Amino acid sequence: MAGKKEIQEQIICAVEKVKETNPLAGSITNTVTINFVANAQLAVGGSAAMVYLPDEGEGIAQASKAVYINVGTLLPVYGETVPRTAKFLHESGKPWVLDPVAVGMGNLRTKLLKQIKEYKPSIIRGNASEIITLAGLWELTGSAGQQRVRGVDTTDSVESAKAAAAALAGWTGGAVAVSGKTDFITDGSACALSYGGSPYLQMITGSGCSLGGVAAVYASASSPFIAALTATAAFNLAASRAEKKANGPGTFQPLFLDELHLAAANDIAANKFEFEEV
Amino acid sequence: MAGKKEIQEQIICAVEKVKETNPLAGSITNTVTINFVANAQLAVGGSAAMVYLPDEGEGIAQASKAVYINVGTLLPVYGETVPRTAKFLHESGKPWVLDPVAVGMGNLRTKLLKQIKEYKPSIIRGNASEIITLAGLWELTGSAGQQRVRGVDTTDSVESAKAAAAALAGWTGGAVAVSGKTDFITDGSACALSYGGSPYLQMITGSGCSLGGVAAVYASASSPFIAALTATAAFNLAASRAEKKANGPGTFQPLFLDELHLAAANDIAANKFEFEEV
Amino acid sequence: MAGKKEIQEQIICAVEKVKETNPLAGSITNTVTINFVANAQLAVGGSAAMVYLPDEGEGIAQASKAVYINVGTLLPVYGETVPRTAKFLHESGKPWVLDPVAVGMGNLRTKLLKQIKEYKPSIIRGNASEIITLAGLWELTGSAGQQRVRGVDTTDSVESAKAAAAALAGWTGGAVAVSGKTDFITDGSACALSYGGSPYLQMITGSGCSLGGVAAVYASASSPFIAALTATAAFNLAASRAEKKANGPGTFQPLFLDELHLAAANDIAANKFEFEEV
Repeated sequence: MAGKKEIQEQIICAVEKVKETNPLAGSITNTVTINFVANAQLAVGGSAAMVYLPDEGEGIAQASKAVYINVGTLLPVYGETVPRTAKFLHESGKPWVLDPVAVGMGNLRTKLLKQIKEYKPSIIRGNASEIITLAGLWELTGSAGQQRVRGVDTTDSVESAKAAAAALAGWTGGAVAVSGKTDFITDGSACALSYGGSPYLQMITGSGCSLGGVAAVYASASSPFIAALTATAAFNLAASRAEKKANGPGTFQPLFLDELHLAAANDIAANKFEFEEV
Repeated sequence: MAGKKEIQEQIICAVEKVKETNPLAGSITNTVTINFVANAQLAVGGSAAMVYLPDEGEGIAQASKAVYINVGTLLPVYGETVPRTAKFLHESGKPWVLDPVAVGMGNLRTKLLKQIKEYKPSIIRGNASEIITLAGLWELTGSAGQQRVRGVDTTDSVESAKAAAAALAGWTGGAVAVSGKTDFITDGSACALSYGGSPYLQMITGSGCSLGGVAAVYASASSPFIAALTATAAFNLAASRAEKKANGPGTFQPLFLDELHLAAANDIAANKFEFEEV
Repeated sequence: MAGKKEIQEQIICAVEKVKETNPLAGSITNTVTINFVANAQLAVGGSAAMVYLPDEGEGIAQASKAVYINVGTLLPVYGETVPRTAKFLHESGKPWVLDPVAVGMGNLRTKLLKQIKEYKPSIIRGNASEIITLAGLWELTGSAGQQRVRGVDTTDSVESAKAAAAALAGWTGGAVAVSGKTDFITDGSACALSYGGSPYLQMITGSGCSLGGVAAVYASASSPFIAALTATAAFNLAASRAEKKANGPGTFQPLFLDELHLAAANDIAANKFEFEEV
């Protein structure tokens, strides 16, 4: 059984490996926060590239060490791009992160999210309502997959999504990260709570998306659980540091990217978290 | 007849209600400024969600208290999404804001803007040339609907758009906001001029779009006229405050979002404006 | 033969003419950095407008003094929009800038880039790998057009792309700008190396795209070679100034836009460069 100290060593290792190797983590993602996702990935030492077309999804998956797929602002072409890319990733054994933004809204979103269940994302990142809804949609919990999300906002607490997160991790064999005031990460056996962050993260668009994109960068350099925890800890640390210098959500965002870039491996590993093996 | 004091009380009420209720105002909008629109909506206390697909336009309209539709950077799918969403909004009596960006350019834009005339947007926000061109396109004024816009820039003064604004408001029964050095807002009977702002607003992309998005947020909490005036006053106040701290248009934008977030209801209501009932 | 002093006078002239005339330079560009491109164009005194649809590509080309075409994040509609717009630009003799982002990835990108060879872009801007790959794809050099780009990153040095740049300039009769630590600009006979910049340019997404967009703005006011050199010098100057004030890549971006806006024509012309006529 891994102890907290061992986890911290793995976090340090992931952060440093990314800074040394500058891994490419391609994305299929929404147009609202696409710039922020790319800049966050670059800030931690990764490389970013975004695509829409089906053959380019496969192409970027081939060129990448890990991929981030976010189903916000769907365009018609996603109907082919998302499942084809997810299938390729699954078959080639490459880590990928799913961000089931606004799950429950719209026919294509529901169809796509059902389709890619079998391609088992290494990491699923969402807010509590998205995690609960996805677990229902995938019939992993008693509840049906009705939309619980208001637009892109959660209506549930992190606590209430723990069982759904565990069920999703049980299915994928990967990790699930539930974002909220205190973030919850599990791979079905190990669980972590990550503390810190800032209220400003809720006042800017894309803090969740960019966390997903950064989790993909770290997934190139560690297990899904460590990658999700490392990305979450880095965000919580950078956000709490940036908050001290910011005068509002506008100045918070560039300051947050600075702190994400400046955060040392040791400090990310030392960011407050609780760890428990089930 | 409403006096200036009564108007100010309604502005205060709109600002405070938004901060208390965090209303969702979904958008169909262009990819250039989509991030800025969302962050401006969040800055004033609203919630944002953007979509492209037809059924998602209806879905987000259903979930929202008000909707923002901006016809910049049209994609083929907008041909179905925009009229379907506007129709839904009209039939369900939900307030919505139209931003007729670059009206007069391209076949789809012209077709869409003609089509949605009957769905009567609660607020139309544009620069002077857009307002004049739209009124012409909708055959509400003598002039035809030829493009007067250079790219996305106005070639007309706010003053010269007053008659077109009144004609549009007469048709929709809502409000029209003409953005410029001094902003003009009318609902056909009441008129306001809002002062302040900053030359930097013209040096960053999306100051108009984000104003439209914020007007949608306030439209969930007040009449179209008050919503348009509140959003405009908040922008003029925040811009003049941000300008004092900025060294250029780059630093102006995050500082502007800070000030938009920090602006108190009283200060927004006290931002210089002239009011007249016709 | 033009001397260095004459080049500097032309740079000053281009910068000042843009500030006086506020030229519209429309773009077809990727969704990742579209906002940054527009804001950079506005910062130097240009005007920006972005489109996706085929007839709007032609419409914006008609309204613009120069156009920027970037093939990142292709959507299906680009298959018609890009060649139609490039053809229009070629036939009307208007300057345009091509940014062959990620050339070599995907079928549509390859097809489009082959198709527009005959429309001879006035300026081609890319990193070293993109320039080498495009010259191969256009069969202007011995090498074939295989992808040498990793995602959107170069795997080659600027030095190694000089022959490909010269071959491309020889074909188009325009200029080619190879971005890297030291930037190389050539029109086939004249060559320049531009110094300065900042490591932060590599840590934010879109420094290359925004450079291309700004080169289009300057192409409305000078020869392709001078436009490419002016844009590059302005970026190198602004980046080195912004770096001194920034604490990381997040704060670097708004500070960079400030400096781009504030840079005087004289200072841009005085930014270190070497010039040689072949």
